[in-house]
Amino acid sequence: MAGVDYLADERNKAQFDVDAMKIVWAGSRHAFEVSDRISKLVANDPAFAKDERTMMPRKELFKNTLRKAAYAWKKINELRLSEEEASKLRFYVDEPAFTDLHWGMFVPFIKGQGTDEQQQKWLSLAYKMQIIGCYAQTELGHGSNVQGLETTATFDPQTDEFVIHSPTLTSSKWWPGGLGKVSTHAVVFARLITDGKEYGVHGFIVQLRSLEDHQPLPGVTVGDIGMKFGNGAYNTMDNGVLRFDHVRIPRDHMLMRFSQVTRDGKYKQSDVPRQLVYGTMVYVRQTIVQDASSALSRAVCIATRYSAVRRQFGSQNGGPETQVIDYKTQQSRLFPLLASAYAFRFAGEWLKWLYTDVTQRLQANDFSTLPEAHACTAGLKSLTTSATADAIEECRKLCGGHGYLCTSGLPELFAVYVPACTYEGDNIVMLLQVARFLMKTVSQLAFGKQLTGTIAYMGRLEHLMECRCSVQKAEDWLNPSAVLEVFEARAARMSVSGAQRLSNFTNPEEGFAELSADLVEAAVAHCQLIVVSKFIEKLQQDIPGQGVKEQLKALCGIYYLYLLHKHQGDFLATSCITPKQASLANDLLRTLYSQVRPNAVALVDAFNYTDHYLGSILGCYDGNVYAKLYDAAWKDPLNESVVPDGYQEFIRPLLKRQLGNAKL
Amino acid sequence: MAGVDYLADERNKAQFDVDAMKIVWAGSRHAFEVSDRISKLVANDPAFAKDERTMMPRKELFKNTLRKAAYAWKKINELRLSEEEASKLRFYVDEPAFTDLHWGMFVPFIKGQGTDEQQQKWLSLAYKMQIIGCYAQTELGHGSNVQGLETTATFDPQTDEFVIHSPTLTSSKWWPGGLGKVSTHAVVFARLITDGKEYGVHGFIVQLRSLEDHQPLPGVTVGDIGMKFGNGAYNTMDNGVLRFDHVRIPRDHMLMRFSQVTRDGKYKQSDVPRQLVYGTMVYVRQTIVQDASSALSRAVCIATRYSAVRRQFGSQNGGPETQVIDYKTQQSRLFPLLASAYAFRFAGEWLKWLYTDVTQRLQANDFSTLPEAHACTAGLKSLTTSATADAIEECRKLCGGHGYLCTSGLPELFAVYVPACTYEGDNIVMLLQVARFLMKTVSQLAFGKQLTGTIAYMGRLEHLMECRCSVQKAEDWLNPSAVLEVFEARAARMSVSGAQRLSNFTNPEEGFAELSADLVEAAVAHCQLIVVSKFIEKLQQDIPGQGVKEQLKALCGIYYLYLLHKHQGDFLATSCITPKQASLANDLLRTLYSQVRPNAVALVDAFNYTDHYLGSILGCYDGNVYAKLYDAAWKDPLNESVVPDGYQEFIRPLLKRQLGNAKL
Ligand SMILES: Cc1cc2nc3c(=O)[nH]c(=O)nc-3n(C[C@H](O)[C@H](O)[C@H](O)COP(=O)(O)OP(=O)(O)OC[C@H]3O[C@@H](n4cnc5c(N)ncnc54)[C@H](O)[C@@H]3O)c2cc1C
Ligand SMILES: Cc1cc2nc3c(=O)[nH]c(=O)nc-3n(C[C@H](O)[C@H](O)[C@H](O)COP(=O)(O)OP(=O)(O)OC[C@H]3O[C@@H](n4cnc5c(N)ncnc54)[C@H](O)[C@@H]3O)c2cc1C
Ligand SMILES: [Ca+2]
Repeated sequence: MAGVDYLADERNKAQFDVDAMKIVWAGSRHAFEVSDRISKLVANDPAFAKDERTMMPRKELFKNTLRKAAYAWKKINELRLSEEEASKLRFYVDEPAFTDLHWGMFVPFIKGQGTDEQQQKWLSLAYKMQIIGCYAQTELGHGSNVQGLETTATFDPQTDEFVIHSPTLTSSKWWPGGLGKVSTHAVVFARLITDGKEYGVHGFIVQLRSLEDHQPLPGVTVGDIGMKFGNGAYNTMDNGVLRFDHVRIPRDHMLMRFSQVTRDGKYKQSDVPRQLVYGTMVYVRQTIVQDASSALSRAVCIATRYSAVRRQFGSQNGGPETQVIDYKTQQSRLFPLLASAYAFRFAGEWLKWLYTDVTQRLQANDFSTLPEAHACTAGLKSLTTSATADAIEECRKLCGGHGYLCTSGLPELFAVYVPACTYEGDNIVMLLQVARFLMKTVSQLAFGKQLTGTIAYMGRLEHLMECRCSVQKAEDWLNPSAVLEVFEARAARMSVSGAQRLSNFTNPEEGFAELSADLVEAAVAHCQLIVVSKFIEKLQQDIPGQGVKEQLKALCGIYYLYLLHKHQGDFLATSCITPKQASLANDLLRTLYSQVRPNAVALVDAFNYTDHYLGSILGCYDGNVYAKLYDAAWKDPLNESVVPDGYQEFIRPLLKRQLGNAKL
Repeated sequence: MAGVDYLADERNKAQFDVDAMKIVWAGSRHAFEVSDRISKLVANDPAFAKDERTMMPRKELFKNTLRKAAYAWKKINELRLSEEEASKLRFYVDEPAFTDLHWGMFVPFIKGQGTDEQQQKWLSLAYKMQIIGCYAQTELGHGSNVQGLETTATFDPQTDEFVIHSPTLTSSKWWPGGLGKVSTHAVVFARLITDGKEYGVHGFIVQLRSLEDHQPLPGVTVGDIGMKFGNGAYNTMDNGVLRFDHVRIPRDHMLMRFSQVTRDGKYKQSDVPRQLVYGTMVYVRQTIVQDASSALSRAVCIATRYSAVRRQFGSQNGGPETQVIDYKTQQSRLFPLLASAYAFRFAGEWLKWLYTDVTQRLQANDFSTLPEAHACTAGLKSLTTSATADAIEECRKLCGGHGYLCTSGLPELFAVYVPACTYEGDNIVMLLQVARFLMKTVSQLAFGKQLTGTIAYMGRLEHLMECRCSVQKAEDWLNPSAVLEVFEARAARMSVSGAQRLSNFTNPEEGFAELSADLVEAAVAHCQLIVVSKFIEKLQQDIPGQGVKEQLKALCGIYYLYLLHKHQGDFLATSCITPKQASLANDLLRTLYSQVRPNAVALVDAFNYTDHYLGSILGCYDGNVYAKLYDAAWKDPLNESVVPDGYQEFIRPLLKRQLGNAKL
């Protein structure tokens, strides 16, 4: 049946121009073109095949990733790919690898924290991959609290060197990706000690392995930390452990852009403003939000296509059964996730703009927007990664039993995605930062401080504390300004109520600790407002393509009404809406589900994912799910023989009641 | 530092008698004694070691499980273990295996659906494991909708045989555990056809493999369906695929307790009431609720102990940092799960009673309580498994980065647990059944039908529709009858509102379909009420042990207040409580967290889990987490060599810029 499109009916139903939507999703025609070309290049090259990934034992899996990384680098050079193309290629290879840390952390960090000379020296090596670097911050005993790291870097004026040392077991570096087996170098974070005094945690470039035979250098103990969640997933990555026994590095391996140690051991701040480091942080978090929309859209694509293929119950007179996507329960679980994928996409797009804006201001020594940008990116990092992790698992459940098979792609997608909730800032720690920012903002309102960006709404606090939602019938919930006001009022009222309760404590720190769980909810409300408002702003732009804007409007409606329903308790408790208005919102939500239903498959086609990237039989483009599942099963190593290995020793004696003498 | 208890301080803080709590948790002194003895027997026997499980390739993993199953059976026979002890032993071996289906589905099903002669014949073989059986219902194309199965069993009067056949690809049996590589026999579900007429789906005992050489019998194609979620997890199980090409079985292999086909091909119902099958269903679901409390308590035990070991931030004057269990955000995520573990334990205990009650009534031909028991068990199955799956992942996140390592035990616990949300009834399909039952109950209220059991509260509908919650200060939320009334009112009002909206539809089926997502929320409210009320009932019993009841009261409070906060929207929208009362509930919740805090480690010690069963370094009894993590890392296969396999081919040429000629 090759060539048959089992989803053709669904595609014919679509009421909008899918090609135009593809460009909206990609962000621009150029971005679409690069993405489309590179994803096909990867998909069509058998060297990048990944279907056997979950069946490989760790060593084989890891070796295969080394091969792919080398092959990808060869291709990148042969085809003279641009930086943009090269990074897309690594993205579509779709396998965590040491190169992620080399390009994503090591290089940017040296760019951000190295002096000009340091950049010249190290980046020229790194760009050609003549050295491979990783980012060694976390230790066995310290992750979130970076200031608590225990590794030391003690300056020895006698030899003009730093001595890097791991004084305790808990000071062992633990987790850095690319460290365990591959990296030749690392940016190592350690407490700087000079002249008998400690100056806090700083970054140092440390060579770990010989460039000749890859053996660890003297004093360096290094290895892999072992298996992680899932089969393939992050097990293609050599997250590592690292201990130093008085390892000496030249003084100029300290990254000295912001501070330095002089030849005679004096510690000095440079005149480069430290705030510049936040630029990098905004950049990294923006990519995390982008990645969230990628992972989420992938899961949603699989669940949507399979829900259109899968039929269960409801057959009348022997006719075909109902497609499970037609069940309202299925829609009410799936479509909000589809809407979230689009919502996070646009939030990520806006964060790109924010990054440019922040960078320009920093260059002009304008630090005024930093606290707001910092809180906003911390919050969106937390919101989008948590939602995406949950959504992937929900998509898996939406596929019933078959979602539990690795060939569905969803178990691995979940396993590889979830650490995003933990790395680059634990999501609760992030929300606590947002909460602090909100409490500070409220407490400063009295002083008439000018509020800009995503916190500007707090400037209209008086109005927001008393406004009443005007919705009277379901369709009134389609009015963007009514919606925005309700989300603003909820966020503002929750913050104010938190601040009021804080003021009952004599010690504000104790109060913050005691109320922190509630304050985190206020932070979530603030972050949801940001995503909703960015989606609404997007719709105020000119968006070409027949029917495209209508679909996005429906998705935007689903997104905010779903949040409204899910957090109904917040909205009602703060009297932002009435029970009647909540119920009207739910009525409209159902209508929007029906509106999206005929467009669902086309809306996930717009992500333009190849079957290779998707890596899922349930989500395959042509919907020929059952034949592919059946064929794939036979490739499991267990099926190499009909009678399993172990039959003679363990099954036969059991059946024959001859276990008595068996060696087990 | 062997022998040091890093959690001793925590254990000294406990304000209750842990040994007494262990007996409450186990259900009885006898149950505790058996559980304690068998779990230690398994833990101390190196044949049952499981630490290498996540590193084994599939074939090795599977063979190892065959070995353990044979060894366990040998032990069971040698030690002449009782049925209770044998099943505990399999439980503590903690590895999905073909024996689960043999003992858990094949045997009970023959007991339930076989005639006396059939039982005599098949059970005597099965009890001695001279045959190994599985349960082959689900097909590639049909799971939830059992009536849609496609496999046929056509009676051939000529030979007095049934012909079992797989007419389509989608009719291939798919998923049955133990089928892929081990089972010699299966209960196969197929559409019975005789005399040219179809009589729906029935069960047949079909031999699949030769008892001599384990080869599939003629016409049987059978294999494993491939890798599933996680590394070890369910990959120790041979979930299988099975196709029949006109396989013939004797007529008396049809399970004939409820209906039969005569020698001349006539289909006949027997006079045994069909309702008896529901007894088995109640039994199976009761074990699922028990399993939920086991899995959840395990995850909570790991996260609680580790949260007491882990310190992060908050160091004053160089002193130790704060234990993360002292953060209110950590408590507000963890303690409700601890409370849920106890709540589900008591719900499970009550379901055991319900099963006895239902069985006795069935034997007396009293079917009156069946619909209620059916809805209640379906609902609790859904509620407890969904909550447990989410909770395990939350516990993993509560452990920060280290929770992502397989040695934390949590990834595998999640992967092995989640299918419980899907098998034995997809959780949404279950809730839809509860919703139907609720709508039917409401519609019949007018006819004055007597309501009993978990639905009795609907008999007080008039009162529940108008009652007002009397809570005026936080402690008023400690009053169990006030709490029960609020939960009853919420459930009742949500059901009634659903029924009212249903009545606006001319076609009630269409209405149900359209409103199903909302009705599912009413079903959840009903099920939560059941769990809360069973916890409260438990506390009305006499519970010995110093301080034990106080702890359980605190946990019960945390459980219902957590639900109240999480579903605040329901309670407010139905005007069961006011925003002020919701906020008071939250205040009390924080107080209860502080109350539980010093007892947390002791409350998880009360589960009495061995380190073997727990399978988690983060959760190990002595809290010596870091040394164990460090030592375990070196056992990963990747660490067999310092320089990784693949260095010469892929890393060195890359560093040396010699990829041009490399074969990749
Ligand atoms: C796949 C993966 C890849 C990684 N890659 C790298 C890498 O390349 N380089 C590197 O240096 N590191 C890496 N890490 C480490 C990662 O950055 C840390 O795991 C992360 O920062 C979280 O810190 P933690 O593990 O110490 O969690 P913890 O801080 O120990 O968190 C444990 C619990 O405590 C809570 N908690 C902590 N502090 C507070 C507080 N103040 N208030 C309330 N609650 C609190 C958290 O919410 C969490 O529930 C990686 C981790 C993973 C999982
Ligand atoms: C680990 C594992 C072990 C198993 N072991 C066995 C075994 O030993 N023997 C055996 O026979 N089977 C076994 N199964 C199969 C299992 O019983 C089925 O997977 C289960 O019944 C769910 O059915 P499904 O997969 O067809 O899901 P589907 O019904 O296809 O579900 C897909 C989606 O459709 C939705 N849906 C379906 N019907 C409706 C409806 N009427 N209204 C609204 N939504 C609906 C569901 O909620 C879900 O979101 C096993 C499965 C697993 C994962
Ligand atoms: Ca594996």
